This record gives sequence, C-alpha cells and structure tokens, in this order.
Amino acid sequence: MDWGQIAQNRLAEIAQCSVDSEGVTRFPFTTEHGEAAKIIRAWMEAAGMAVRWDAAGTLIGRKEGPAGAPTFLIGSHQDSVRNGGRYDGIMGVALGCLAVEKLTAEGVELPFAVEVLAFADEEGVRFPTALMGPRALAGTFDPSVLEMTDRSGVSLRQALADFGGDPDEVAALQRDPAATLGYLELHIEQGPVLEDADVALGIVTGICGIERNTVIFTGDTGHAGTVPMAGRRDALVAASEFITEVFDAANKIADLRATVGSLSLLPNVVNAIPRQVELTLEIRALQDEAREEFAAFAQALGQKIAQKRNAGFAMHRTYDQPAVPCDAGLVTALETSVRQGCPTAPRLPSGATHDASAMADLCPISMLFLRCKDGVSHKPEEFASDADMAAAIEAVSTFLTSLPTGA
Amino acid sequence: MDWGQIAQNRLAEIAQCSVDSEGVTRFPFTTEHGEAAKIIRAWMEAAGMAVRWDAAGTLIGRKEGPAGAPTFLIGSHQDSVRNGGRYDGIMGVALGCLAVEKLTAEGVELPFAVEVLAFADEEGVRFPTALMGPRALAGTFDPSVLEMTDRSGVSLRQALADFGGDPDEVAALQRDPAATLGYLELHIEQGPVLEDADVALGIVTGICGIERNTVIFTGDTGHAGTVPMAGRRDALVAASEFITEVFDAANKIADLRATVGSLSLLPNVVNAIPRQVELTLEIRALQDEAREEFAAFAQALGQKIAQKRNAGFAMHRTYDQPAVPCDAGLVTALETSVRQGCPTAPRLPSGATHDASAMADLCPISMLFLRCKDGVSHKPEEFASDADMAAAIEAVSTFLTSLPTGA
Repeated sequence: MDWGQIAQNRLAEIAQCSVDSEGVTRFPFTTEHGEAAKIIRAWMEAAGMAVRWDAAGTLIGRKEGPAGAPTFLIGSHQDSVRNGGRYDGIMGVALGCLAVEKLTAEGVELPFAVEVLAFADEEGVRFPTALMGPRALAGTFDPSVLEMTDRSGVSLRQALADFGGDPDEVAALQRDPAATLGYLELHIEQGPVLEDADVALGIVTGICGIERNTVIFTGDTGHAGTVPMAGRRDALVAASEFITEVFDAANKIADLRATVGSLSLLPNVVNAIPRQVELTLEIRALQDEAREEFAAFAQALGQKIAQKRNAGFAMHRTYDQPAVPCDAGLVTALETSVRQGCPTAPRLPSGATHDASAMADLCPISMLFLRCKDGVSHKPEEFASDADMAAAIEAVSTFLTSLPTGA
Repeated sequence: MDWGQIAQNRLAEIAQCSVDSEGVTRFPFTTEHGEAAKIIRAWMEAAGMAVRWDAAGTLIGRKEGPAGAPTFLIGSHQDSVRNGGRYDGIMGVALGCLAVEKLTAEGVELPFAVEVLAFADEEGVRFPTALMGPRALAGTFDPSVLEMTDRSGVSLRQALADFGGDPDEVAALQRDPAATLGYLELHIEQGPVLEDADVALGIVTGICGIERNTVIFTGDTGHAGTVPMAGRRDALVAASEFITEVFDAANKIADLRATVGSLSLLPNVVNAIPRQVELTLEIRALQDEAREEFAAFAQALGQKIAQKRNAGFAMHRTYDQPAVPCDAGLVTALETSVRQGCPTAPRLPSGATHDASAMADLCPISMLFLRCKDGVSHKPEEFASDADMAAAIEAVSTFLTSLPTGA
C-alpha cells in the first residue's frame, strides 16, 4: 500500500467540500462541513473505527481497546481559513485515520483504545471564538461563547443545534484525565524550518506563548520645510530605531520571535513631521520567562530611545497566552519512532496555536510537524508531499505500538 | 501711531471674511475673497495708493513714482488654508500697506513707484494649482490650468470670470523686468527659529528647493510565529534602519531638511511579517547641489541596507522644485534696515514655498520673516505680536527709502 498516495488522494477529494474552488473555504457547522464529515466517517470506518458525533460537533472515530483500558487521542480540525489550503488541519485527521488503518490492516492490537477526533473549528473564522471541541473535552469550555454570532447574525448555539449538535450538552463532554493516555496532533509546520533542513518530519517541543503589545511613540508634528532637523521630535525616527533594535536583539535568542507587524502614523502626510506612531509588538517564545524577559528588554529599550530622541514612549500588553510544553515522555517516544525512518528529524517549537493547546488541559500532549512547501500555509498553494505523509503515517503507527499503557 | 496695533486690529477685522469662525477659511474667487478685497482696498487707499484689479484677480495698490521710474513690488496672498490662521499670507499685504502708509504719513517721496499686490491664491486648496497671480506677472503662467476644477466641478476659468477677472487676459499681464526694481514679501516664519533665537525678524536668504521621493522596501511576509528570525526578509526592519539613518545624516547638514512623513505597510497585521513598506522621503535645501547630493546618499544608503537585510529597495523622485535664492543686493539692503531696530536678526532659509518663488522669474526677490508663536501656522492658533509687526513696518519703510533706483 502507498499510504502517502492514499492520503494525497483523500485530501484532494475532501478539498472539494469548499464554498468555492480557489483553495479550500470550509467553515464549521456549514453544508461543506457536513459533506466533509461524510468523507471523514468513511476514513474512520475504513480504519475499523466506530464513528459518532459528540455534542460539540466533533466527529469521533474509536478503535476499542481492552476492557477498562485508557484511550489515546489523535486529532486536528476539519475547518479552514477563507481560501486556505488542503492540508492545514484536515491532514492531521486524514493521517491519524490512516495510521490506525495501517495498524488494523497489519492486525496489530493496541493495549489501549484509540480515538481520532475531527474538531469542528480551530481557525475561528466564522465565530469570534474557536477550539470549542477540545475545550469541551478538557473541561475548560465557557458556555457564554455560544451566544457569539457570525456575520449573518447566527449564534454559535443556533449553528451548532442546526448542525445536529447539542449546545446544552457541550459542557458535559469533559473527559476523565485518568482514562486519557495522551494526545497527538499531526500538522503541517506552516514555516520553513523543515524544508530548510531538508527533512520530512519534526518533533514539536511545545507551543509558544504569545503576547501582543501596543507601543506608542509621540513627538511634535511640524512643517517638513520650516522646522530645522536639530529641534525635531520625530515620532517615526524614534519608532524606527526601536523596530530595528528589537529585531536585531530577538535574532540573537533561540526559540523567540518578535514581530512589529502593523504600524500607523499621524498625521501621515508627505510634508509633515510625524507626531505619533502606534505599532504592535508580538513576542512568541517556548519559555514564558524568556518572553517576559524580552518584553522587559523592549520596555527599557523604548524608554532609552525615547529619551535619546526627545520623544514620548508607552508600551502596554493587550494579549497574553502562556506557552504549552509538550509532554517529555511523549516527545521522547515520538522522536524515537520518527527517527527510525527519518534519522535527522529535529525538535522544534510551534510558533502557531493548535487544538493541542486546549487539549493540554486534559492530558499530556505531543505534536508532529510535516514539512510544507515554501513554508506556506493558509493559501491554496499549501502543499505536503506523498512521501512526507507516508513517513508520518509510518512514524505514528510505530509510535502507537511503542506506547506503554501508562504513558 | 502704534503701527503694530493698527496691523493687529486690521488682521482681526479681515479674519471675519471666512467661511466659518474656527480660524480663517478663505479660498480664492469666493464671497469671502470679495469681502476681504473691500477691506484691502481701504488699506491701500489709506496709504495713498490707487487701487485696481488685474485680470488674474490680484488686487493692486499703486503709489506713483517719478515719471518713467521703475516699480518696486511688495506682495503676498489673501487666501488661507481651511481653518488656518489670520497671519499667513494676509499679514504680508497688511504690513506692506502700512509701510507705505507710514512713508506717506511722513511725507516721504520715493524715487520709484511702489505697488502692493494681494494675490488671490497661494495655498492651492480650492484648485489643484496655485500662484496664478505672480506667474502671470512673471510670464510663466500656463493657460491650461484654467480648465482645472474645484470639488464642485467649477473650473478656475469660470470662477475667475464670475469673480470679475478675465481668463483670456491673464497671459497678457506679463511685466517688463526692466521696469521692475524688485519684490519683497513679508511672511510669518512658520517655524521655530526666530522664537528660539528670541528675535522678531529674520532676513530670508532663499527659498529651499524641494524634492519628493517614493521609497519602497520589499521582503517576504510570513507567520509571525512560525518563521524563525534568522530567515526573515522583513521590509519594515529595513525601512526602519533607513529612516533612522536618513534622519541622523540630515541632522549633520546645515540648511537641509529630510523628512519621512508618510509610510504604508503591507499586509499591516499584528501576526504577519511585513512584506512591503512604501514611504515618502522629502528633501529640502537652499542649495540644489546639496539636495541632490543627499538624495544620492539616500539611494546608496537604501541599497546598502537592503543588501544587509536581504530586502529589495527602490527609490524614485516624484517631484522636483529647484531652490530660489534671494537677491544678494536686496538681502544686504534689507538686513541693514532690519538691524537698525533688531540688531540680532539672523539670516535664514525659507523651507516653505511662497509667492516670491514665482516672482523670482520676473525680478530680484527678497523676503522678511516675522517670529510666530510656537512656530505654528495653518492653524487658528497662529500668532504674531503687535511689537514684531511694528518692527517689520519700521524695517520695511526704512528699506524702501534705502533702495537706489537701480537696485
């Protein structure tokens, strides 16, 4: 069997469940979601799994283990961004099913049950919330989000009920940690690291914490012709020095990313000195301490530059999400299995958030990244090769057989 | 007579000729322009001048000289920006009239004729053109601008004709350089130099040349979490280094100003690496050579930074206006007169453009700057004091009596 080719064909088929033909646009609790679920159900059944919906709209395939044995979970999301690719999310569901199908085909019996979970919504594009499925399982679901509405005014409660879910039973989905061995998520890397290293797979060490800061430099505006350089308080010059120095400093720290992604200028006209610059500084790191240290550095740097440039400076945090480390035991087990076929597979952090972030509140988590072409995701050009997906299926089936019941 | 107080009262009165009461809003060829002209006519008549309109809508007061003697011109503009102040432009007309009135009151007869010119439009707010009045006198008027329209669709031709001007006679207004002694314009500084130096008046050495450049840095976008710092091609980081270095370099060059006033970013979102930054670089200098040298420096700097930051760089000039030096003889004569009452009056360049820029094509030009509070212009807060205006009237009347016929 060419498991990689099967995966590729299946992803091509399910990519048709999309609002339009430019890439994939599949939002939760829509007609496209329902069509995709029929296909996923077939994947699960082919793997010898029993299939059911839970109240939160997660499609669950279960391969039973010995009576009373715990359950190992493999999951990812079925939804996409608008005009996204055919791998982000859904590939993790497809490869999870194929790893189980491979074991079933080989007659392997595991000492625990395995479930593959196809979560409804990780991207958070339709509603201003996401991760309802894994949060329900982890017992961190906040029922108030059910009242949030999409652009058409449809509430999440209504959309879920119309889809066949049961909004009032979502909170009751909480799993027993003692009966849950762990969680694995397969996902495209969405970055260039594996491609640059010329390797198919990477073992994720954890999901970076994220903070976002609003940074404001203030000065005085004035006529670009009549105000001599020496007396200027140019907010953009101060902000520019800050941006360059933040980048160069972050560049020296492993597993840390600092990005000034957006910036606005007042008054923003060709012949006036800028009096205010507001910018965003996003910092991500695998260690919360490293992230907080860097934020403190940026604070001090901004103050120093503002003093030197005779400008005002303010920086305040607008968003803060702690890092989620992967489980050391699962990481080691996954690495051992991966390196059988892929000896140079590196460990690397995940800079983006995933369903695994929410699952960490339930059980030990792990993630396997697959190389994606040009590091591209969230675009129709997103691509992972047959060979890389075959390597992942091989690694995950090995990994499952290597897990002790008490992993 | 308290000439400064008279000037202040006259400017308060004519400030009422405005579309609304927040500062002054007076555009050319409007009802407000017509009302203001009635007041200016009275100022001119009080100075013993004969008053007439020319075909371009310039109100001209003339104090006759000996038969066949040449004419010295004093002028500025009657119009304002939207919600501007009560000094920019119109103060030059008011003080010109008062300087002549003072000489008339003292019985001084000059060996040449003097005209005070109240130009219709210097700010260029109503129509996408300006300086029709002085250009007509200098013979540089381009009749095609008559077809330009304001926001209501009214052409300049129509507006001028409705106001009583004669569009088809504008080109014929060209003066004979041999019959024109020179031109003087009084204007608020619109900058902080005189206030910082604690002096009422400054002698303008010339009007800076201006060039505007569009500068584009390009890189690659990517997810702020998944793309490691080391491989990034961040257009904003490159642009920021450019902005800081341009400022610091310009700061070391006398009489040169370089300003990045506007900037736009793509994609400009908190969690994406900027792939393109487009910014404006305006350079002004009294010497065209110094300006061109600085532009070449900026080109080379941008290329150097782009190479270092692995980014793309392009810079092209979108606007170019040569510098206009003031006449050395008039500058010296004006300086001598000004320093009788104001011994520390400095020479300084004009960073902004004025009617004098266009008049330079007709005759030797000179300008006198008055200190303005906080360097503010184009706002209701614009202010020049009675005492400073009195000093200017005194200096200009002395200057006029000092001029040889063949100046």
